[in-house]
Amino acid sequence: MIRSRIVGAGGFGGANIIELLTAHPEAEIVSLVDVDGVGQPISAKHTHLKGICDLPVSAPDDATWDDSIDVVFTATPDGVGMTVANDCMKAGARMIDYSGDFRFNSAEAYAGYAERIGRDPTHAAVDLLPRSVYGIAELHRAEIADAAMVGNPGCFAVSAILGAGPAVRDGLIDTSTIICDAKTGVSGAGIKPAQTFHYPLRYENMNAYKIAAHQHNFEIERELSLLAGAELRVTLTTQVVPLCRGIMTTVYGQLANPSTTAQELYEAYAAFYDGSAFVRVEPQGTPTSNNDVRGSNLCVLSVNVDPRTGRMIVVSHIDNLMKGQAGSALQNMNVMFGLDETIGLRRPAFYP
Amino acid sequence: MIRSRIVGAGGFGGANIIELLTAHPEAEIVSLVDVDGVGQPISAKHTHLKGICDLPVSAPDDATWDDSIDVVFTATPDGVGMTVANDCMKAGARMIDYSGDFRFNSAEAYAGYAERIGRDPTHAAVDLLPRSVYGIAELHRAEIADAAMVGNPGCFAVSAILGAGPAVRDGLIDTSTIICDAKTGVSGAGIKPAQTFHYPLRYENMNAYKIAAHQHNFEIERELSLLAGAELRVTLTTQVVPLCRGIMTTVYGQLANPSTTAQELYEAYAAFYDGSAFVRVEPQGTPTSNNDVRGSNLCVLSVNVDPRTGRMIVVSHIDNLMKGQAGSALQNMNVMFGLDETIGLRRPAFYP
Amino acid sequence: MIRSRIVGAGGFGGANIIELLTAHPEAEIVSLVDVDGVGQPISAKHTHLKGICDLPVSAPDDATWDDSIDVVFTATPDGVGMTVANDCMKAGARMIDYSGDFRFNSAEAYAGYAERIGRDPTHAAVDLLPRSVYGIAELHRAEIADAAMVGNPGCFAVSAILGAGPAVRDGLIDTSTIICDAKTGVSGAGIKPAQTFHYPLRYENMNAYKIAAHQHNFEIERELSLLAGAELRVTLTTQVVPLCRGIMTTVYGQLANPSTTAQELYEAYAAFYDGSAFVRVEPQGTPTSNNDVRGSNLCVLSVNVDPRTGRMIVVSHIDNLMKGQAGSALQNMNVMFGLDETIGLRRPAFYP
Amino acid sequence: MIRSRIVGAGGFGGANIIELLTAHPEAEIVSLVDVDGVGQPISAKHTHLKGICDLPVSAPDDATWDDSIDVVFTATPDGVGMTVANDCMKAGARMIDYSGDFRFNSAEAYAGYAERIGRDPTHAAVDLLPRSVYGIAELHRAEIADAAMVGNPGCFAVSAILGAGPAVRDGLIDTSTIICDAKTGVSGAGIKPAQTFHYPLRYENMNAYKIAAHQHNFEIERELSLLAGAELRVTLTTQVVPLCRGIMTTVYGQLANPSTTAQELYEAYAAFYDGSAFVRVEPQGTPTSNNDVRGSNLCVLSVNVDPRTGRMIVVSHIDNLMKGQAGSALQNMNVMFGLDETIGLRRPAFYP
Repeated sequence: MIRSRIVGAGGFGGANIIELLTAHPEAEIVSLVDVDGVGQPISAKHTHLKGICDLPVSAPDDATWDDSIDVVFTATPDGVGMTVANDCMKAGARMIDYSGDFRFNSAEAYAGYAERIGRDPTHAAVDLLPRSVYGIAELHRAEIADAAMVGNPGCFAVSAILGAGPAVRDGLIDTSTIICDAKTGVSGAGIKPAQTFHYPLRYENMNAYKIAAHQHNFEIERELSLLAGAELRVTLTTQVVPLCRGIMTTVYGQLANPSTTAQELYEAYAAFYDGSAFVRVEPQGTPTSNNDVRGSNLCVLSVNVDPRTGRMIVVSHIDNLMKGQAGSALQNMNVMFGLDETIGLRRPAFYP
Repeated sequence: MIRSRIVGAGGFGGANIIELLTAHPEAEIVSLVDVDGVGQPISAKHTHLKGICDLPVSAPDDATWDDSIDVVFTATPDGVGMTVANDCMKAGARMIDYSGDFRFNSAEAYAGYAERIGRDPTHAAVDLLPRSVYGIAELHRAEIADAAMVGNPGCFAVSAILGAGPAVRDGLIDTSTIICDAKTGVSGAGIKPAQTFHYPLRYENMNAYKIAAHQHNFEIERELSLLAGAELRVTLTTQVVPLCRGIMTTVYGQLANPSTTAQELYEAYAAFYDGSAFVRVEPQGTPTSNNDVRGSNLCVLSVNVDPRTGRMIVVSHIDNLMKGQAGSALQNMNVMFGLDETIGLRRPAFYP
Repeated sequence: MIRSRIVGAGGFGGANIIELLTAHPEAEIVSLVDVDGVGQPISAKHTHLKGICDLPVSAPDDATWDDSIDVVFTATPDGVGMTVANDCMKAGARMIDYSGDFRFNSAEAYAGYAERIGRDPTHAAVDLLPRSVYGIAELHRAEIADAAMVGNPGCFAVSAILGAGPAVRDGLIDTSTIICDAKTGVSGAGIKPAQTFHYPLRYENMNAYKIAAHQHNFEIERELSLLAGAELRVTLTTQVVPLCRGIMTTVYGQLANPSTTAQELYEAYAAFYDGSAFVRVEPQGTPTSNNDVRGSNLCVLSVNVDPRTGRMIVVSHIDNLMKGQAGSALQNMNVMFGLDETIGLRRPAFYP
Repeated sequence: MIRSRIVGAGGFGGANIIELLTAHPEAEIVSLVDVDGVGQPISAKHTHLKGICDLPVSAPDDATWDDSIDVVFTATPDGVGMTVANDCMKAGARMIDYSGDFRFNSAEAYAGYAERIGRDPTHAAVDLLPRSVYGIAELHRAEIADAAMVGNPGCFAVSAILGAGPAVRDGLIDTSTIICDAKTGVSGAGIKPAQTFHYPLRYENMNAYKIAAHQHNFEIERELSLLAGAELRVTLTTQVVPLCRGIMTTVYGQLANPSTTAQELYEAYAAFYDGSAFVRVEPQGTPTSNNDVRGSNLCVLSVNVDPRTGRMIVVSHIDNLMKGQAGSALQNMNVMFGLDETIGLRRPAFYP
């Protein structure tokens, strides 16, 4: 059994990895850590876990590090994972971090990201950065298998990178024209209440936020630049719509060859994701929707061409808490420990 | 492996039992039947099942009956199950019917129900009625184990009967004062569009319907009368609120002994459901909500007393599509086939 | 023009009375008071008011009292109105308070209420209590016209009292059997974020709260006792469902004469509300819903009898922020100042 | 008083213009026409109008044409207005049509539109096309004042044209790079139930539809081409999100001069809409949302620049049933009849 610890158990990202690990046939949870609810069972906060997982919550300082743990999930915001990482590595555990702390494998790349989002550009565990791999298995399966650490990707980034990746790698679009128009459900904002997510102010609301300034923009550009083999920049617009779980990112790009057909584009995407169980590519004309992915680890891509304007339009659907967070984390764990990557993740979307 | 057929695969009740059976380690689906989508894979309609279940849909007339089927789920409205039942029995299969067709085990009881809801009081398979058991395992576990047929309960009925049952059996309330105020999510209305469930007319709407005339009233009275050992009548008010999955039924009854405390009532309920994995009883003061049950097979009961008026107030939560339908159906199948009744049903509520 | 001040402008109740007064042909707003947003235009917080009302917010201590104000709306929680009332009266203004501070016109009655909800039973402006009238115009129109102060009713209380009132006054039900099962939208909880109203935890949720202990229970009992001419007690269950605006309260009572028909009950209700522009009574069989009242000042009542159990079932619909709060407040202002009570309130429900 | 007829009274667009006209001080409704509900009061279908408007519905064939009508609103789909127009003109009434029938003022332009959406390219009232004006008052105020007919704009078109218009007219963006990513609430689909708008399948759903093929694309291109003084093409992606009322269209364009600042762009937009009461322009950094416009006739524009990619990002908010339909229709009526265009339309957004 893979013995796991979850740091940040009290958030949505913590709750969801608890659910997945509890149902996983080859993993178990040995400890839960959070700053809130210390000493109480996690099911006091996440009451839906009563009888499923009633482990107590430990304070960060009380969580000892020894060889009893094989993998740590740090389901925490930026700045936490980097303070835990050295202890984790010393104890021989591997680590999957949900934040931006380990999504960039060099001091320079991290500094660029940190400056952009207003954080200290000096990384607290800079020596470990080269040991970390960006956690989209569809792009980095082999490196993840060997990695000590995985920087689990940002939710918007998963949808955008999977949506643009094949076109970028295969040179099918002009990489200076990429626009990612992303719409997310509210759970992406986490469990902490805020005015803008107060039910009466949100139920019929939608808005753009952090226009041209979202922190996930940076990792999208980095991963797509790697695929393109050249630096590129992307416009990312992040928008909140009144649903709980789901991201729909519409990716636009000017076709490199304006006569590329929707069918040709579809075939390129299908080829790219051949063998990837969690990406389903649909051709132009086949309806896709959030209902196809909600609650599942799937990414569903609708691949389209607007021949009148010579543009590619790819609609990328994921569940932000699954493929966009805990689902990818478990998929990465499976890959890291040599298991079939679909174990514990084969459930269909929650319906209706 | 238990080989199963699902009749009415195209509805919500069909989709959910497909999902449950697909994930069940000791069951498999061998055929799907519906009047719509014949010849197409079921995943053409329920697109979230692509890759999970792509079996083709057969027309009712094309579905042959032989010994290859162990159990049939008729996820169909009143009047369908009774036309299938004889073929099913002859082929040696057992049957779990979602409608009112087999919830009453005598011609007289069925006639009373049918007249009340405006159907022909003559049952099309009247000889089979004595072979059927009402499908709430918490009340009839032993009979279900031996039954050829199960009349799977109505969703409102599950919530009301589990909510009132212990107080009624133990004589804790005046059985002439039972009121069940039920609120259901919209999925209870099924998959067929209708004006009243059109999103723009429903998203901020709530209403009572079939006031003093809902078809589930009859089976509630029948089961509670059996528990009371005397005929009783219940006022049931059915109301729709704008959510998808969930029923919250608030059960009122005048305490037989006005000095009964909340704690005493709680203990009676806890004792009644001792050993029932899918009913969780919570004492007064412990918050309960639809979030505790949505997507799970749980019934969560909050047991309260209003000492100022001498009333019991029990709040009963279920997911109408799980414990209120497909979940109970699978639980009944487990019991019928001698399996642990929780197999395939241990998942926590969908969160958030 | 009636010159008004609003204390507590930053809440939902403040926002809604601002909207109503802004559109009122014979009223104007002269000052806004709140503890938050001092010095800023109110439209900085309620951005939908940009260009409609951009008055600055004053701090409570900076709001001077002189003869320039005709009426003060204290859209504030319990305990605030009573600290403002003396200044208000001295300045010659009349007052409409949203809280429980002035819903009881004697020290004894107030003390009973305060103790029940855990507040100091000593009222800070006890001498003013006899000058206040409970603000349901349908019951107290004449006294409101002459009142110095109005205790604007609680939202649940409006729905319950209007729903039960005619049957109680006319002796049509056994007053020891009244149960009010109330379902409210989330806006009733106010503008302040909280975990339980965080969108991801609320969108598919419903729950009962303050079971047998809600503060509005007391004023319901008081007003119905006045109508009955004898003390009575009521069971009130308050429940939150996932919509923003609306209360649906289902009122149950055992018929005094079990042979009373739905038509007779309907006629009693219709007679009771004859001349009341904001109450519409519908007979059994006519659908009613929250869509009939949302955004309007209407109370719509569906009057039903369950002949099998001898019970009355009245479904009472209001918009909690209109007839349940700001709409009633404006209606009361109209009555207090000798205007047609419908001025500024004739708009239909918001649809769809 | 302006005497009006509404054809298509039974839809959302009919209901909303009824509400607006009923509250309008200088207009009245003299007849309602629909194919459904003939002979019944309109409030039998739109029950929220009981007591507000109880006029009976006439069948189309029974609606006589004489000089008693000043203006006709055809709140009907494509193909209806053109069959009514000649009678309407002969009777001396003016006409405001909600469909594409009169949005194009030449046979050629109409044919282009009709072919694109699969309709007969021959217009049934082709002689009247030159008498019709496209109904965005902010662009065509003077022509509308004199027009016999107005082609009321499509909802997506209003949001896109108002969002892109100033940048296009002032040459601030490369007109070959315009992308309009539009998200609409469900009410845009009308009142008729359909599977995709059935509450259980929509409440947590979002999807793109008619990708690169929406009928409003054509009028967006036509109006923006007029502003640009040259033919241009636009990519429009139409998407449905789970709310009822509101469109948020994010408009992208490559800046003609990459050093254009957000402030310069804002000023151009503010100047363009100077004097337009229903368009509010907000600079980068000021939050905007659907809450600012829902239920009102406003268009709120957030004007942004992404300096890293040299792109303009304008977020355009409207209520699809108000500025996107009935509100624009009333605004056009006001302009046609020489009234202040804001009469009957000054209400703030519905909040919360």
